[in-house]
Amino acid sequence: MNDQVDAHLIETKLKSQALFSGAFLHAFRDTVALPDGTEAFREYVIHPGAVMIIPMLELPGQPLQLVMERQFRYPVQQVMIEFPAGKLDPKESTLACAQRELLEETGYRAKQWARAGVMHPVISYSTEFIEIWFAKELTLGESQLDPGEFLEVFTQTPAQLQKACLAGEITDGKTLTGMFWLQSLLSGERSFEWVSAST
Amino acid sequence: MNDQVDAHLIETKLKSQALFSGAFLHAFRDTVALPDGTEAFREYVIHPGAVMIIPMLELPGQPLQLVMERQFRYPVQQVMIEFPAGKLDPKESTLACAQRELLEETGYRAKQWARAGVMHPVISYSTEFIEIWFAKELTLGESQLDPGEFLEVFTQTPAQLQKACLAGEITDGKTLTGMFWLQSLLSGERSFEWVSAST
Repeated sequence: MNDQVDAHLIETKLKSQALFSGAFLHAFRDTVALPDGTEAFREYVIHPGAVMIIPMLELPGQPLQLVMERQFRYPVQQVMIEFPAGKLDPKESTLACAQRELLEETGYRAKQWARAGVMHPVISYSTEFIEIWFAKELTLGESQLDPGEFLEVFTQTPAQLQKACLAGEITDGKTLTGMFWLQSLLSGERSFEWVSAST
Repeated sequence: MNDQVDAHLIETKLKSQALFSGAFLHAFRDTVALPDGTEAFREYVIHPGAVMIIPMLELPGQPLQLVMERQFRYPVQQVMIEFPAGKLDPKESTLACAQRELLEETGYRAKQWARAGVMHPVISYSTEFIEIWFAKELTLGESQLDPGEFLEVFTQTPAQLQKACLAGEITDGKTLTGMFWLQSLLSGERSFEWVSAST
Protein backbone atom coordinates (compact mmCIF):
# COMPACT_ATOMS: atom_id res chain seq x y z
CA MET A 1 0.00 0.00 0.00
CA ASN A 2 1.27 3.43 -0.87
CA ASP A 3 0.02 5.70 1.93
CA GLN A 4 0.65 8.87 -0.01
CA VAL A 5 -1.22 7.71 -3.10
CA ASP A 6 -4.08 6.25 -1.04
CA ALA A 7 -4.58 9.18 1.33
CA HIS A 8 -8.08 9.61 -0.13
CA LEU A 9 -8.98 6.12 1.15
CA ILE A 10 -7.12 5.63 4.42
CA GLU A 11 -8.74 5.81 7.88
CA THR A 12 -6.64 6.76 10.90
CA LYS A 13 -7.16 5.52 14.45
CA LEU A 14 -8.07 8.24 16.96
CA LYS A 15 -8.86 6.03 19.93
CA SER A 16 -9.61 2.41 20.74
CA GLN A 17 -12.02 0.98 23.26
CA ALA A 18 -12.30 -2.68 24.26
CA LEU A 19 -15.89 -3.80 23.70
CA PHE A 20 -15.47 -7.09 25.48
CA SER A 21 -13.08 -9.96 25.97
CA GLY A 22 -14.59 -13.42 25.86
CA ALA A 23 -12.91 -16.80 26.09
CA PHE A 24 -12.42 -16.71 22.32
CA LEU A 25 -13.77 -13.42 20.92
CA HIS A 26 -12.07 -10.13 21.70
CA ALA A 27 -13.77 -7.09 20.23
CA PHE A 28 -12.87 -3.42 19.94
CA ARG A 29 -14.58 -0.24 18.88
CA ASP A 30 -12.17 2.30 17.42
CA THR A 31 -12.90 5.91 16.64
CA VAL A 32 -11.28 6.73 13.30
CA ALA A 33 -10.73 9.79 11.15
CA LEU A 34 -12.13 9.24 7.67
CA PRO A 35 -10.26 10.55 4.61
CA ASP A 36 -12.34 13.75 4.69
CA GLY A 37 -11.55 14.35 8.37
CA THR A 38 -14.93 13.34 9.75
CA GLU A 39 -15.12 10.73 12.50
CA ALA A 40 -16.61 7.24 12.43
CA PHE A 41 -16.58 4.05 14.51
CA ARG A 42 -15.12 0.73 13.46
CA GLU A 43 -16.09 -2.40 15.43
CA TYR A 44 -14.04 -5.53 14.88
CA VAL A 45 -12.72 -8.66 16.54
CA ILE A 46 -9.05 -9.43 16.86
CA HIS A 47 -7.80 -12.86 15.86
CA PRO A 48 -4.35 -14.48 16.17
CA GLY A 49 -4.39 -15.71 12.55
CA ALA A 50 -4.84 -19.20 11.19
CA VAL A 51 -3.62 -21.69 8.65
CA MET A 52 -5.38 -23.96 6.16
CA ILE A 53 -3.80 -27.03 4.64
CA ILE A 54 -4.49 -28.54 1.21
CA PRO A 55 -3.25 -32.10 1.81
CA MET A 56 -2.56 -34.04 -1.39
CA LEU A 57 -2.53 -37.81 -0.99
CA GLU A 58 -0.80 -39.74 -3.79
CA LEU A 59 -1.04 -43.49 -3.40
CA PRO A 60 0.62 -45.82 -5.93
CA GLY A 61 -1.65 -46.54 -8.89
CA GLN A 62 -4.42 -44.27 -7.59
CA PRO A 63 -5.58 -40.82 -8.64
CA LEU A 64 -4.65 -37.85 -6.48
CA GLN A 65 -6.88 -37.50 -3.42
CA LEU A 66 -7.39 -34.53 -1.11
CA VAL A 67 -7.71 -35.04 2.64
CA MET A 68 -10.77 -33.17 3.88
CA GLU A 69 -12.99 -32.89 6.93
CA ARG A 70 -16.64 -32.82 7.84
CA GLN A 71 -17.32 -30.80 10.95
CA PHE A 72 -20.35 -29.21 12.60
CA ARG A 73 -19.94 -25.44 12.70
CA TYR A 74 -22.18 -24.04 15.36
CA PRO A 75 -22.56 -20.41 14.10
CA VAL A 76 -23.93 -21.64 10.75
CA GLN A 77 -25.66 -24.71 12.25
CA GLN A 78 -24.39 -27.02 9.54
CA VAL A 79 -21.96 -29.85 8.99
CA MET A 80 -19.40 -28.21 6.69
CA ILE A 81 -16.90 -29.77 4.30
CA GLU A 82 -13.53 -28.11 4.76
CA PHE A 83 -9.83 -28.36 4.26
CA PRO A 84 -8.06 -28.88 7.60
CA ALA A 85 -7.36 -25.59 9.40
CA GLY A 86 -6.61 -24.13 12.77
CA LYS A 87 -5.52 -21.11 14.75
CA LEU A 88 -1.91 -20.09 15.36
CA ASP A 89 -0.52 -20.64 18.84
CA PRO A 90 1.46 -17.71 20.30
CA LYS A 91 4.78 -17.24 18.45
CA GLU A 92 4.09 -20.29 16.24
CA SER A 93 5.16 -20.05 12.59
CA THR A 94 2.46 -20.70 10.01
CA LEU A 95 4.32 -23.78 8.72
CA ALA A 96 4.70 -25.24 12.21
CA CYS A 97 0.99 -24.58 12.80
CA ALA A 98 0.06 -26.23 9.50
CA GLN A 99 2.11 -29.32 10.39
CA ARG A 100 0.58 -29.48 13.88
CA GLU A 101 -3.01 -29.01 12.74
CA LEU A 102 -2.70 -31.53 9.90
CA LEU A 103 -1.39 -34.16 12.32
CA GLU A 104 -3.83 -33.38 15.14
CA GLU A 105 -6.95 -33.31 12.97
CA THR A 106 -6.21 -35.94 10.31
CA GLY A 107 -3.31 -38.03 11.56
CA TYR A 108 -1.25 -37.23 8.44
CA ARG A 109 2.31 -35.97 8.31
CA ALA A 110 3.62 -34.42 5.10
CA LYS A 111 7.23 -34.45 3.86
CA GLN A 112 6.82 -31.58 1.40
CA TRP A 113 5.17 -28.21 1.97
CA ALA A 114 4.58 -25.19 -0.26
CA ARG A 115 2.97 -21.89 0.68
CA ALA A 116 0.10 -21.01 -1.66
CA GLY A 117 -0.84 -17.58 -0.32
CA VAL A 118 -2.76 -15.72 2.31
CA MET A 119 -6.44 -14.85 2.51
CA HIS A 120 -8.41 -12.47 4.72
CA PRO A 121 -11.76 -14.14 5.42
CA VAL A 122 -13.70 -11.18 6.79
CA ILE A 123 -12.07 -7.82 6.15
CA SER A 124 -15.02 -5.79 7.39
CA TYR A 125 -14.93 -6.92 11.03
CA SER A 126 -11.98 -9.17 11.87
CA THR A 127 -8.19 -8.96 11.78
CA GLU A 128 -8.02 -12.65 10.85
CA PHE A 129 -5.70 -13.88 8.12
CA ILE A 130 -5.37 -17.48 6.92
CA GLU A 131 -2.07 -18.70 5.47
CA ILE A 132 -2.69 -21.49 2.95
CA TRP A 133 -0.20 -24.34 2.60
CA PHE A 134 -0.07 -27.26 0.16
CA ALA A 135 1.15 -30.53 1.69
CA LYS A 136 2.29 -33.66 -0.17
CA GLU A 137 4.13 -36.96 0.40
CA LEU A 138 1.73 -37.81 3.19
CA THR A 139 2.09 -40.64 5.69
CA LEU A 140 -0.71 -41.66 8.01
CA GLY A 141 -0.31 -41.89 11.77
CA GLU A 142 -2.82 -41.30 14.54
CA SER A 143 -4.95 -38.17 14.74
CA GLN A 144 -4.84 -36.36 18.08
CA LEU A 145 -8.04 -34.37 18.32
CA ASP A 146 -8.35 -31.78 21.05
CA PRO A 147 -10.88 -32.69 23.76
CA GLY A 148 -14.30 -31.56 22.58
CA GLU A 149 -13.31 -31.66 18.90
CA PHE A 150 -15.47 -33.90 16.73
CA LEU A 151 -14.84 -34.28 13.03
CA GLU A 152 -14.72 -36.82 10.24
CA VAL A 153 -11.80 -37.18 7.85
CA PHE A 154 -12.36 -38.34 4.28
CA THR A 155 -10.65 -38.13 0.90
CA GLN A 156 -11.87 -37.15 -2.53
CA THR A 157 -10.33 -36.35 -5.90
CA PRO A 158 -9.96 -32.76 -7.13
CA ALA A 159 -12.68 -33.50 -9.71
CA GLN A 160 -15.07 -34.67 -6.99
CA LEU A 161 -14.28 -31.59 -4.92
CA GLN A 162 -14.80 -29.32 -7.93
CA LYS A 163 -18.15 -30.95 -8.61
CA ALA A 164 -19.26 -30.50 -5.00
CA CYS A 165 -18.24 -26.82 -5.08
CA LEU A 166 -20.12 -26.21 -8.34
CA ALA A 167 -23.18 -27.98 -6.92
CA GLY A 168 -23.21 -25.62 -3.94
CA GLU A 169 -22.42 -28.41 -1.46
CA ILE A 170 -19.28 -26.62 -0.28
CA THR A 171 -19.80 -23.07 0.93
CA ASP A 172 -16.90 -22.54 3.32
CA GLY A 173 -15.03 -19.47 2.07
CA LYS A 174 -11.55 -20.68 2.93
CA THR A 175 -12.17 -24.03 1.21
CA LEU A 176 -13.50 -22.31 -1.94
CA THR A 177 -10.40 -20.10 -1.89
CA GLY A 178 -8.38 -23.29 -1.54
CA MET A 179 -10.04 -24.55 -4.73
CA PHE A 180 -8.74 -21.49 -6.54
CA TRP A 181 -5.19 -22.21 -5.35
CA LEU A 182 -5.45 -25.95 -6.05
CA GLN A 183 -6.55 -25.25 -9.63
CA SER A 184 -3.61 -22.90 -10.12
CA LEU A 185 -1.24 -25.63 -8.94
CA LEU A 186 -2.79 -28.50 -10.92
CA SER A 187 -3.07 -26.43 -14.11
CA GLY A 188 0.53 -25.24 -13.83
CA GLU A 189 -0.58 -21.59 -13.96
CA ARG A 190 1.76 -20.86 -11.10
CA SER A 191 4.73 -22.66 -9.65
CA PHE A 192 5.27 -22.97 -5.91
CA GLU A 193 8.38 -23.44 -3.85
CA TRP A 194 8.39 -26.74 -1.98
CA VAL A 195 10.27 -27.15 1.26
CA SER A 196 11.04 -30.36 3.14
CA ALA A 197 9.49 -30.73 6.56
CA SER A 198 12.04 -30.81 9.36
CA THR A 199 10.47 -33.67 11.29
CA MET B 1 -27.56 -32.25 6.53
CA ASN B 2 -28.96 -35.49 7.81
CA ASP B 3 -29.32 -35.04 11.56
CA GLN B 4 -29.63 -38.76 12.21
CA VAL B 5 -26.54 -39.67 10.21
CA ASP B 6 -24.54 -36.77 11.66
CA ALA B 7 -25.50 -37.23 15.32
CA HIS B 8 -21.83 -37.94 16.10
CA LEU B 9 -20.95 -34.41 14.91
CA ILE B 10 -23.83 -32.15 15.91
CA GLU B 11 -23.78 -29.71 18.82
CA THR B 12 -27.03 -28.69 20.53
CA LYS B 13 -27.77 -25.35 22.14
CA LEU B 14 -28.40 -25.49 25.89
CA LYS B 15 -28.50 -21.77 26.60
CA SER B 16 -27.56 -18.51 24.97
CA GLN B 17 -26.13 -15.36 26.57
CA ALA B 18 -25.68 -11.99 24.85
CA LEU B 19 -22.04 -10.96 25.17
CA PHE B 20 -22.60 -7.44 23.91
CA SER B 21 -24.47 -5.46 21.34
CA GLY B 22 -22.49 -2.76 19.53
CA ALA B 23 -23.56 -0.45 16.75
CA PHE B 24 -22.50 -3.14 14.28
CA LEU B 25 -21.27 -6.22 16.12
CA HIS B 26 -23.65 -8.36 18.13
CA ALA B 27 -22.04 -11.27 19.94
CA PHE B 28 -23.33 -14.27 21.85
CA ARG B 29 -21.88 -17.00 24.00
CA ASP B 30 -23.89 -20.20 23.83
CA THR B 31 -23.53 -23.22 26.04
CA VAL B 32 -23.79 -26.32 23.85
CA ALA B 33 -23.94 -30.06 24.34
CA LEU B 34 -21.21 -31.77 22.33
CA PRO B 35 -21.89 -35.09 20.56
CA ASP B 36 -20.55 -37.01 23.59
CA GLY B 37 -22.83 -35.10 25.98
CA THR B 38 -20.17 -32.90 27.52
CA GLU B 39 -20.66 -29.14 27.54
CA ALA B 40 -18.72 -26.41 25.77
CA PHE B 41 -19.05 -22.71 24.94
CA ARG B 42 -19.41 -21.23 21.47
CA GLU B 43 -18.80 -17.50 20.99
CA TYR B 44 -19.91 -15.92 17.74
CA VAL B 45 -21.25 -12.76 16.16
CA ILE B 46 -24.56 -12.60 14.38
CA HIS B 47 -24.73 -10.98 10.96
CA PRO B 48 -27.71 -10.17 8.71
CA GLY B 49 -26.06 -11.69 5.64
CA ALA B 50 -24.54 -9.99 2.62
CA VAL B 51 -24.23 -10.10 -1.14
CA MET B 52 -21.30 -9.85 -3.51
CA ILE B 53 -21.63 -8.89 -7.15
CA ILE B 54 -19.39 -10.00 -10.04
CA PRO B 55 -20.18 -7.20 -12.54
CA MET B 56 -19.22 -8.06 -16.14
CA LEU B 57 -18.78 -5.05 -18.42
CA GLU B 58 -18.93 -5.82 -22.14
CA LEU B 59 -18.25 -2.80 -24.33
CA PRO B 60 -18.37 -3.09 -28.14
CA GLY B 61 -15.04 -4.18 -29.55
CA GLN B 62 -13.41 -4.51 -26.14
CA PRO B 63 -12.52 -7.54 -24.03
CA LEU B 64 -14.68 -8.37 -21.04
CA GLN B 65 -13.93 -6.19 -18.02
CA LEU B 66 -14.88 -6.71 -14.37
CA VAL B 67 -15.99 -3.79 -12.24
CA MET B 68 -14.03 -3.80 -8.99
CA GLU B 69 -13.27 -1.61 -6.01
CA ARG B 70 -10.34 -0.45 -3.94
CA GLN B 71 -11.28 0.26 -0.37
CA PHE B 72 -9.45 0.73 2.93
CA ARG B 73 -10.47 -2.01 5.34
CA TYR B 74 -9.74 -0.89 8.86
CA PRO B 75 -9.48 -4.29 10.64
CA VAL B 76 -6.73 -5.43 8.26
CA GLN B 77 -5.24 -1.90 7.83
CA GLN B 78 -4.94 -2.26 4.07
CA VAL B 79 -6.47 -0.98 0.88
CA MET B 80 -8.15 -4.12 -0.48
CA ILE B 81 -9.19 -5.00 -4.01
CA GLU B 82 -12.69 -6.43 -3.94
CA PHE B 83 -15.80 -7.21 -5.89
CA PRO B 84 -18.63 -4.86 -4.84
CA ALA B 85 -20.51 -6.15 -1.78
CA GLY B 86 -22.78 -5.07 1.00
CA LYS B 87 -25.05 -6.12 3.84
CA LEU B 88 -28.69 -7.04 3.49
CA ASP B 89 -31.23 -4.53 4.74
CA PRO B 90 -34.08 -5.99 6.84
CA LYS B 91 -36.44 -8.10 4.68
CA GLU B 92 -34.44 -7.27 1.53
CA SER B 93 -34.00 -10.06 -1.02
CA THR B 94 -30.44 -10.89 -2.01
CA LEU B 95 -31.11 -9.83 -5.63
CA ALA B 96 -32.58 -6.48 -4.57
CA CYS B 97 -29.58 -5.97 -2.28
CA ALA B 98 -27.16 -6.83 -5.10
CA GLN B 99 -28.86 -4.32 -7.41
CA ARG B 100 -28.84 -1.63 -4.72
CA GLU B 101 -25.21 -2.14 -3.71
CA LEU B 102 -23.96 -2.27 -7.31
CA LEU B 103 -25.66 1.04 -8.06
CA GLU B 104 -24.69 2.76 -4.81
CA GLU B 105 -21.04 1.77 -4.89
CA THR B 106 -20.21 1.78 -8.61
CA GLY B 107 -23.01 3.64 -10.40
CA TYR B 108 -23.75 0.64 -12.61
CA ARG B 109 -27.12 -0.93 -13.26
CA ALA B 110 -27.30 -4.43 -14.76
CA LYS B 111 -30.07 -5.82 -16.97
CA GLN B 112 -29.19 -9.49 -16.44
CA TRP B 113 -28.49 -11.27 -13.17
CA ALA B 114 -27.55 -14.87 -12.31
CA ARG B 115 -26.99 -16.36 -8.88
CA ALA B 116 -23.62 -18.10 -8.61
CA GLY B 117 -23.86 -19.53 -5.12
CA VAL B 118 -23.48 -18.81 -1.44
CA MET B 119 -20.39 -18.71 0.72
CA HIS B 120 -19.86 -18.63 4.47
CA PRO B 121 -16.83 -16.41 5.11
CA VAL B 122 -16.10 -17.32 8.73
CA ILE B 123 -17.85 -20.44 9.94
CA SER B 124 -16.02 -20.60 13.25
CA TYR B 125 -17.35 -17.36 14.74
CA SER B 126 -20.00 -15.65 12.59
CA THR B 127 -23.41 -16.49 11.19
CA GLU B 128 -22.61 -14.45 8.05
CA PHE B 129 -23.43 -15.77 4.59
CA ILE B 130 -22.65 -14.02 1.30
CA GLU B 131 -24.86 -14.65 -1.73
CA ILE B 132 -22.84 -14.22 -4.93
CA TRP B 133 -24.48 -12.80 -8.06
CA PHE B 134 -23.19 -12.35 -11.60
CA ALA B 135 -24.36 -9.13 -13.31
CA LYS B 136 -24.13 -8.30 -17.02
CA GLU B 137 -25.49 -5.83 -19.59
CA LEU B 138 -24.28 -2.94 -17.47
CA THR B 139 -25.12 0.72 -17.94
CA LEU B 140 -23.35 3.47 -16.05
CA GLY B 141 -25.16 6.09 -14.01
CA GLU B 142 -24.09 7.92 -10.87
CA SER B 143 -22.75 6.15 -7.82
CA GLN B 144 -24.48 7.03 -4.55
CA LEU B 145 -22.00 6.28 -1.79
CA ASP B 146 -23.25 6.30 1.77
CA PRO B 147 -21.88 9.17 3.88
CA GLY B 148 -18.51 8.12 5.24
CA GLU B 149 -17.92 5.59 2.47
CA PHE B 150 -14.74 6.11 0.46
CA LEU B 151 -13.78 3.80 -2.37
CA GLU B 152 -12.36 3.73 -5.89
CA VAL B 153 -14.01 1.91 -8.77
CA PHE B 154 -11.91 0.45 -11.57
CA THR B 155 -12.14 -2.24 -14.23
CA GLN B 156 -9.85 -5.05 -15.24
CA THR B 157 -10.03 -8.13 -17.44
CA PRO B 158 -10.47 -11.62 -15.95
CA ALA B 159 -6.86 -12.38 -17.00
CA GLN B 160 -5.58 -9.32 -15.12
CA LEU B 161 -7.62 -10.29 -12.07
CA GLN B 162 -6.32 -13.87 -12.24
CA LYS B 163 -2.76 -12.60 -12.44
CA ALA B 164 -3.27 -10.32 -9.42
CA CYS B 165 -4.75 -13.20 -7.40
CA LEU B 166 -1.86 -15.53 -8.30
CA ALA B 167 0.63 -12.79 -7.39
CA GLY B 168 -0.91 -12.51 -3.93
CA GLU B 169 -2.14 -8.95 -4.53
CA ILE B 170 -5.74 -9.96 -3.84
CA THR B 171 -6.34 -11.64 -0.50
CA ASP B 172 -9.99 -10.89 0.21
CA GLY B 173 -11.68 -14.26 0.74
CA LYS B 174 -14.98 -13.37 -0.92
CA THR B 175 -13.18 -12.00 -3.99
CA LEU B 176 -11.01 -15.13 -4.29
CA THR B 177 -14.19 -17.21 -3.99
CA GLY B 178 -15.64 -14.98 -6.72
CA MET B 179 -12.67 -15.96 -8.92
CA PHE B 180 -13.63 -19.59 -8.50
CA TRP B 181 -17.19 -18.85 -9.65
CA LEU B 182 -16.07 -16.57 -12.49
CA GLN B 183 -13.79 -19.29 -13.84
CA SER B 184 -16.62 -21.80 -13.73
CA LEU B 185 -18.79 -19.41 -15.76
CA LEU B 186 -16.14 -18.42 -18.31
CA SER B 187 -14.96 -22.02 -18.80
CA GLY B 188 -18.51 -23.26 -19.27
CA GLU B 189 -18.05 -25.81 -16.47
CA ARG B 190 -21.41 -24.80 -15.11
CA SER B 191 -24.38 -23.00 -16.58
CA PHE B 192 -26.30 -20.36 -14.65
CA GLU B 193 -29.86 -19.15 -14.89
CA TRP B 194 -30.06 -15.51 -15.95
CA VAL B 195 -32.99 -13.34 -14.93
CA SER B 196 -33.89 -9.89 -16.21
CA ALA B 197 -33.79 -7.08 -13.68
CA SER B 198 -37.18 -5.53 -12.97
CA THR B 199 -36.00 -1.91 -13.04
